[in-house]
Amino acid sequence: MIAKPFIKRLEQILGKDHVMTEKADRICYSYDATQRQFLPDVVVHPGSPAEISEIMKLANAEKIPVFPRGAGSGFSGGSLPTEGGIVLATSRLDQILEIDEENLVATVEPGVVTETFQKAVEKVGLFYPPDPASLKFSTLGGNVAECAGGPRCVKYGVTKDYILGLEVVTPTGDIIRTGGPTMKGVVGYDLTKLMVGSEGTLAVITKIIIKLLPLPEAKKTMLVLFDSIDGAAKAVSAIIRGKIIPTTLEFMDSATIDCVREATDLEVPDTARAVLIIEVDGDADMIDKQAGRIADIVQPLGVVETRIATTAAESEALWKIRRSVSPSLRKVNPDKFNEDICVPRSKVPDMIRKVEEISQRHDVPIVNFGHAGDGNIHVNVMIDKKKPGDSEKAEAAIEEVFKEALALGGTMSGEHGVGIMKAPYIPLELPVSAVDYMKTIKKALDPNNILNPGKIFLD
Amino acid sequence: MIAKPFIKRLEQILGKDHVMTEKADRICYSYDATQRQFLPDVVVHPGSPAEISEIMKLANAEKIPVFPRGAGSGFSGGSLPTEGGIVLATSRLDQILEIDEENLVATVEPGVVTETFQKAVEKVGLFYPPDPASLKFSTLGGNVAECAGGPRCVKYGVTKDYILGLEVVTPTGDIIRTGGPTMKGVVGYDLTKLMVGSEGTLAVITKIIIKLLPLPEAKKTMLVLFDSIDGAAKAVSAIIRGKIIPTTLEFMDSATIDCVREATDLEVPDTARAVLIIEVDGDADMIDKQAGRIADIVQPLGVVETRIATTAAESEALWKIRRSVSPSLRKVNPDKFNEDICVPRSKVPDMIRKVEEISQRHDVPIVNFGHAGDGNIHVNVMIDKKKPGDSEKAEAAIEEVFKEALALGGTMSGEHGVGIMKAPYIPLELPVSAVDYMKTIKKALDPNNILNPGKIFLD
Repeated sequence: MIAKPFIKRLEQILGKDHVMTEKADRICYSYDATQRQFLPDVVVHPGSPAEISEIMKLANAEKIPVFPRGAGSGFSGGSLPTEGGIVLATSRLDQILEIDEENLVATVEPGVVTETFQKAVEKVGLFYPPDPASLKFSTLGGNVAECAGGPRCVKYGVTKDYILGLEVVTPTGDIIRTGGPTMKGVVGYDLTKLMVGSEGTLAVITKIIIKLLPLPEAKKTMLVLFDSIDGAAKAVSAIIRGKIIPTTLEFMDSATIDCVREATDLEVPDTARAVLIIEVDGDADMIDKQAGRIADIVQPLGVVETRIATTAAESEALWKIRRSVSPSLRKVNPDKFNEDICVPRSKVPDMIRKVEEISQRHDVPIVNFGHAGDGNIHVNVMIDKKKPGDSEKAEAAIEEVFKEALALGGTMSGEHGVGIMKAPYIPLELPVSAVDYMKTIKKALDPNNILNPGKIFLD
Repeated sequence: MIAKPFIKRLEQILGKDHVMTEKADRICYSYDATQRQFLPDVVVHPGSPAEISEIMKLANAEKIPVFPRGAGSGFSGGSLPTEGGIVLATSRLDQILEIDEENLVATVEPGVVTETFQKAVEKVGLFYPPDPASLKFSTLGGNVAECAGGPRCVKYGVTKDYILGLEVVTPTGDIIRTGGPTMKGVVGYDLTKLMVGSEGTLAVITKIIIKLLPLPEAKKTMLVLFDSIDGAAKAVSAIIRGKIIPTTLEFMDSATIDCVREATDLEVPDTARAVLIIEVDGDADMIDKQAGRIADIVQPLGVVETRIATTAAESEALWKIRRSVSPSLRKVNPDKFNEDICVPRSKVPDMIRKVEEISQRHDVPIVNFGHAGDGNIHVNVMIDKKKPGDSEKAEAAIEEVFKEALALGGTMSGEHGVGIMKAPYIPLELPVSAVDYMKTIKKALDPNNILNPGKIFLD
């Protein structure tokens, strides 16, 4: 428990209104999308980098852990206050500070919601591509901390690719600017990219300088139903070998389709055992050509049906199948372990086959969908936590899924990060020397291990 | 001087043929493109990561500095053996290990020459965009160490954007793999991006995993002559506001054009005071449309003449003007200080005006050309080092150029890095806290400061 005088000093820094100690309030900041729960001692809502600097200096002096938190929508437990201490919420730092239309650069505070930002830049004809599924509530600060992805990353890259610079507060309270608003810059180490994806363990993000693109003129959505997952996977490779990199190349396996078929009234023929949702964007004439070429390329690969949207409403209708996946899954079983392995694109069919074997061996339903274009598969192990033995079965299955992904040259996580959920599995993926190298960096920058301790590394 | 027994141990690790101690040999590795010279004690040519690991362990134990070297084509002195010691040349590690056409990923050794690699991937219809001017001799290892850029970066990004993973040897001799061949990956800190641009101070690169793109179907080159630099600069902004991001947006100022006019028989009308070379690539029909739109957009901005290439030979002819710049400059004065500031794109005209003032005030010719599309200007201060006072004038002018670039929100270096040439100016750009943060990382990873010491940071 944090002592009263410490709370008093937080109140002096932030004002009483922005320091929460009531249990009811603290409970609101005790969980995230993993549904794990840890009660913080205090929740603070700083209004400026200077206040965050003061908080960090104080916490560092007293060795009280600080857990930065955006919207708490992460899937790896990155924002959970696993050791009590202080939750540092970025909700008051929610301003879009500048959208520089001349230079295609924006500056925002970390608490801006991803979709709010996307809409703001699209209003002036600009484009921020990263689109994590949580974009309606996740914050840009959280997206940067976890290096969020999304369906459009196959063409446009991940969050990291759009972050030009940051202002951060270090664990010892220094305010540092990294990078800047220029398109190139090679003076000193790239602290910006080191921070992106460091899961809130190296610094608290207080400002984000973001590169924007011109908004593509048009987009075109196609939904292709295949008679096998192999056909769909071959289609992905064939499209890219055909020199087209679509904006999205989303897939759903047969287990996922079964869920959707049962839970909704969407029309999906029984012969469809895999789905690809393919979107292309850019010059209007070019994407018409590309859509036609894609249809030709995939046709010999066991296509049951191809639907091409010609209006925005039709496009929405096609996406509805994909969007109905998460709600549909709950009908299989109430709880899911949602993993997000990533393998080289060509290994997706091998991976799906391995997952099917693991599912059968452990007698636990697993449904796969996600971003086939970049080999990033959402592997959802469906269980009922209340059933004895179900959680253990899921955990055993997940460890095997990770091992198979790694054996195929992949990674345990393409988008969600390590947090606490994957920390126990780190030795499967990273050799001791690499972990030691990372820990050396962490220790050098956060000597008292007060910033988001216990994340990524178990000790 | 390094003691004989140490040399003996190097010979045991590498074989006698790969350890050079003759002065004539060492002189070959004593300079780079900066024309500064420092004689190493010994030059080694390791043939494997294991050998490099042995060398690093030995050097670390004996506290002998090691200077990794690709082609020695850098403009900031990054590979210079400023403290004697060991030059570690990557020339024997020159294999393209794999071009994975299915996954658009290649794996190479650091000593592969950039152009060799580009040609190899283009042969199978793939594309590696970064194109530093030195690509005919620079190595990919050097490109990664410095985060090289080039004209195509305005559309395609810099070296960093294509590096998915590395194998490196740490200053203490550990062999570490960072990242991997997947398009996404968020397990642990992004050591890959920390290494890219760290100028050989954090680890020796031994393997590089590179992301490739499909080779664009076609490209189209235009050369536009303007009656003022303002018109050309406005054209850059107008094109991008017009939602076109060309592959290249190269500019030359009037001083550069004068040089070319004097030194070559290329036809450049007297009324042309600025040149833009604009290239677009992609779908053949789309780029025809884009070229037409660009011509319309720039027309009102003081265009003297627009030349559009319709064949590859015509495109080459247009690029000839740009390629003749460097040889032409030598006619102005024999020596040049070649800086590469980068400012927000919209600030290019302000920056050029400032440079003209500085040139007049210090009575020293300065010619500007480079990558207008991303605000990356090559500022060339032309002097004759043999003339008393010329070097001092140049240095005073350069410091002012840096200060003006920073005042406009820019950086001292967009592509070349800090090395030893810009190290004295680091305090102009980075606050003490940021430098301390970087030095903390360096010190933690290289406790004996044996890997490329004296680079980036003065002490």
